[in-house]
Amino acid sequence: MALYGSSVEYGLHCLLYLSENADAVPPSCKDLAEYQGISPTYVAKLFTKLEKAGLVVSAEGVRGGFRLAQPKRDISVLQVVDALEGGQPLFKCREIRGNCILYEGNPPDRVTSSVCRIHALMLEAELKMRGVLAARSLDELDKSVGEVMPAETKQATRDWFDARAQTRAPARRTGV
Amino acid sequence: MALYGSSVEYGLHCLLYLSENADAVPPSCKDLAEYQGISPTYVAKLFTKLEKAGLVVSAEGVRGGFRLAQPKRDISVLQVVDALEGGQPLFKCREIRGNCILYEGNPPDRVTSSVCRIHALMLEAELKMRGVLAARSLDELDKSVGEVMPAETKQATRDWFDARAQTRAPARRTGV
Repeated sequence: MALYGSSVEYGLHCLLYLSENADAVPPSCKDLAEYQGISPTYVAKLFTKLEKAGLVVSAEGVRGGFRLAQPKRDISVLQVVDALEGGQPLFKCREIRGNCILYEGNPPDRVTSSVCRIHALMLEAELKMRGVLAARSLDELDKSVGEVMPAETKQATRDWFDARAQTRAPARRTGV
Repeated sequence: MALYGSSVEYGLHCLLYLSENADAVPPSCKDLAEYQGISPTYVAKLFTKLEKAGLVVSAEGVRGGFRLAQPKRDISVLQVVDALEGGQPLFKCREIRGNCILYEGNPPDRVTSSVCRIHALMLEAELKMRGVLAARSLDELDKSVGEVMPAETKQATRDWFDARAQTRAPARRTGV
């Protein structure tokens, strides 16, 4: 099983829309979900995590919805990944050194007080991996996506969300 | 859930014994399992994968068991990890771009023919992570462990395995 899955993929796609369209009416989870063809409940769960991590804020009312809580250049992909996946470690160390038959169930402190070198190596690898994600901002990722996404798709996306915003019922609470 | 778990931890601990004691009687899975306090069936499964990947070889007979198939300086931690975990990706990309409501279930080739930039970033991060594991040989990991493992523990380990080898019944097929 991969370390990062659907929640990162959907979450980042949602945030890329917010990054690209900061001047638009903030979309609701329902809008973002329908655009991507997934469940609004699922998107709402993602946004609860993103809001808790201080990456997005919600506004209520007819023109309400979600927007980034910080400038897109100040939010790293790593922050998004950690918010959605809860900082999953690359390697789960069970400290099996302590189970060695030599210790008869009572490993001495000097064995378990140092970091296992296998674990240390995995932490080094994880640090490099996280460094790549920490060095990329949402702004940079958005620009990178812009290089491959046709301009007409960008415009069609914006038009679709704008049209959705127009259909909102005045009494509806958005942002959830 | 972590990307790498018990199989990597147990597998590497087993291979570190083989690295450190190339001149000893090759241990059986049962020996390695008992030393680490785990199931021999589980260790046998790990060694089936390691043997298939060409990292260990088994010999039968009273003095049989497992040994490294290559010099320990030529086996990288990444090879071991890939053999045991099957090259798990850091990120599982589901290509959700194709589900976008704009395409009505029929995304154009130009959308799906390029690598998604989120996926590309994850592959970059994965490459860095794997690079760290590829750059560390079993020999180097063994030396690194040697810096924290007391000499008497190393000797006691060797003595334990030597004693096990002495008790082998002549008719027993080892290596499994």
